Amino acid sequence: MAVPADGSIRRFSLAIDAMGGDHAPDCILDGLELAAERHPQAQFLLVGDEAKLRDALARRPRAAKLCVIRHAPDAIPGDMKPTVALRQGRKSSMRLAIDAVANGEAAGVVSAGNTGALLALAKIVIKTMPEIGRPALAAITPSARGDVVMLDLGANVQCDARNLIEFAIMGDAFARAVLGLPSPTIGLLNVGSEELKGDDRVRQAAEVLRDGHAQLNFHGFIEGHDIAAGTVDVVVTDGFTGNVALKTGEGALKLMRDLLRQVFTSTIPARVGYLLARPALERLREWMDPRRYNGAILLGLNGVVVKSHGGTDATGFAHAVDVAMDMVTHGFTQSIREGLSRLATHAAAPLAVPPIAAQQD
Amino acid sequence: MAVPADGSIRRFSLAIDAMGGDHAPDCILDGLELAAERHPQAQFLLVGDEAKLRDALARRPRAAKLCVIRHAPDAIPGDMKPTVALRQGRKSSMRLAIDAVANGEAAGVVSAGNTGALLALAKIVIKTMPEIGRPALAAITPSARGDVVMLDLGANVQCDARNLIEFAIMGDAFARAVLGLPSPTIGLLNVGSEELKGDDRVRQAAEVLRDGHAQLNFHGFIEGHDIAAGTVDVVVTDGFTGNVALKTGEGALKLMRDLLRQVFTSTIPARVGYLLARPALERLREWMDPRRYNGAILLGLNGVVVKSHGGTDATGFAHAVDVAMDMVTHGFTQSIREGLSRLATHAAAPLAVPPIAAQQD
Repeated sequence: MAVPADGSIRRFSLAIDAMGGDHAPDCILDGLELAAERHPQAQFLLVGDEAKLRDALARRPRAAKLCVIRHAPDAIPGDMKPTVALRQGRKSSMRLAIDAVANGEAAGVVSAGNTGALLALAKIVIKTMPEIGRPALAAITPSARGDVVMLDLGANVQCDARNLIEFAIMGDAFARAVLGLPSPTIGLLNVGSEELKGDDRVRQAAEVLRDGHAQLNFHGFIEGHDIAAGTVDVVVTDGFTGNVALKTGEGALKLMRDLLRQVFTSTIPARVGYLLARPALERLREWMDPRRYNGAILLGLNGVVVKSHGGTDATGFAHAVDVAMDMVTHGFTQSIREGLSRLATHAAAPLAVPPIAAQQD
Repeated sequence: MAVPADGSIRRFSLAIDAMGGDHAPDCILDGLELAAERHPQAQFLLVGDEAKLRDALARRPRAAKLCVIRHAPDAIPGDMKPTVALRQGRKSSMRLAIDAVANGEAAGVVSAGNTGALLALAKIVIKTMPEIGRPALAAITPSARGDVVMLDLGANVQCDARNLIEFAIMGDAFARAVLGLPSPTIGLLNVGSEELKGDDRVRQAAEVLRDGHAQLNFHGFIEGHDIAAGTVDVVVTDGFTGNVALKTGEGALKLMRDLLRQVFTSTIPARVGYLLARPALERLREWMDPRRYNGAILLGLNGVVVKSHGGTDATGFAHAVDVAMDMVTHGFTQSIREGLSRLATHAAAPLAVPPIAAQQD
């Protein structure tokens, strides 16, 4: 559990911000205890209050085997603005975990802390891959035909064709690494599926993706209802539309759950009916368990960055660790580089446009 | 049922495209027969194949009392391109119904025909109100707290701040006329609810709506999940985002319905449970009956234009007629004019920008 005696830089699978989230550090450590079963070869750099973490690890034997503690005297509060976190959070658990990725000690970082601070610090400290114009925020959502990757979810409220093409390449690499798909289908979200629909941005991006040089399995344009239908494995869109679409779909499912709860408590026969159907309904509940879909992933940096929901439990945090481990072990970053280089070699006219500089906020 | 003997122009409540949609004209006439009960004072100009319509009306006594037939030798096929419909559809039922609005015979038009053709013909023939930059497509959707109006749904894939402000005014007028709300709350869709979120467009629009001169009940920014939650009565957004959000929400609800169907047929106890809960589930089904939400409305033209879904039944078509009648009888167009003039009198800086010319496609 100690830092190696020879003082050499040790390569960790992941740096874990042990102090981020509503129930830190206990929920974080319980999550690692669960994740440790699935990733016995992993090595975690556990960043936070050393005394607390030492006690907590003593009660979690599986996690203890995989963790090295690094002391961080501070933690970034959930309501701190990113700009303030950047100036005042230099000794925080989140910052020191991010620093470990930036300096090559860890391949990725997982945090359940302040979202705005994590995204801003990660972009500035870990930095965007030189080949990528702008990083994107991705998530996995349920569909009728299995899990679907969606990006961007709000890292970039305005995007051009080049950004969308890069999102497609990153989404492809992510779906290979995390969903284990050999050739994920990619759809570009639009207001109609015909080639002439939409604005210049999506039409230009579709043209490049269609010409095949990127060697993606490009399905073409998709519409909003295709997300839940699972028409494609990867849904590519700008951050404004993606953010709205993700939250709209979640909102509709939540409404339906609330209404079903009302229905099943409204009358005595309905209550009995619920009890009879419960085992079958339970599978539905498991299928759409938000903990299974916990974790927003910032793609396109020089390292893996996964944000766990702040209010999740140990199971949810363990899922976020799973996603990060899949990215680390299945060569996600290398896969992006290959996709981009294929594109650069054969680049068609719209890609001659130099990538827009990464937005540093 | 005949045209007045004196040949005077008669004022119809609505012109009805009797030949548009999958089951025309029977489904259209059945819909009018239903709508006739709720609108006994209405007068409908029924446009289509005269011989067929005469026979069909003879079997629908309530509708027959309110309808005058106008012969149209052609009908626009569902797959005809708008540009072709414009050139070749001059004698079609859809075009003659639209002409009746343009020349002042009817206050509005309802069609279940080709959507692209209807929107294009209506914009070109009926024309945009002089005070409005661009018309918008609106619809009513269900939420946890009652019906919600959403616009734009795809008439304009790119919008500026001025367009969004006009959409807010039109959405307000529509919610007053159709939902009967004295002071509908208006929300601007964004990626977060804080004032600094989003792009310049939404921030500029929010600034003008917030200053109060438009005298709208402006709630501020809302997010995707607020649509189903019913946080506001009117959801304002650009046509790209609105189209994606509407279809994403519909897709999520459809997925949930499909999964519930699977759950309730998966085991014998689940089937019995379904039978017991059925009366309560039936209320849920009624509540989200797509026929209740049938009708996309093109707002901002010099007349009322309602598009019924092509595959709907008589009940769905009657709902589309209800919406059009509410707009005609509750002074929708006048209400927009008043909203715009309030804004013009007090216009703040961003509104000094002249409205963009209506897009004629």
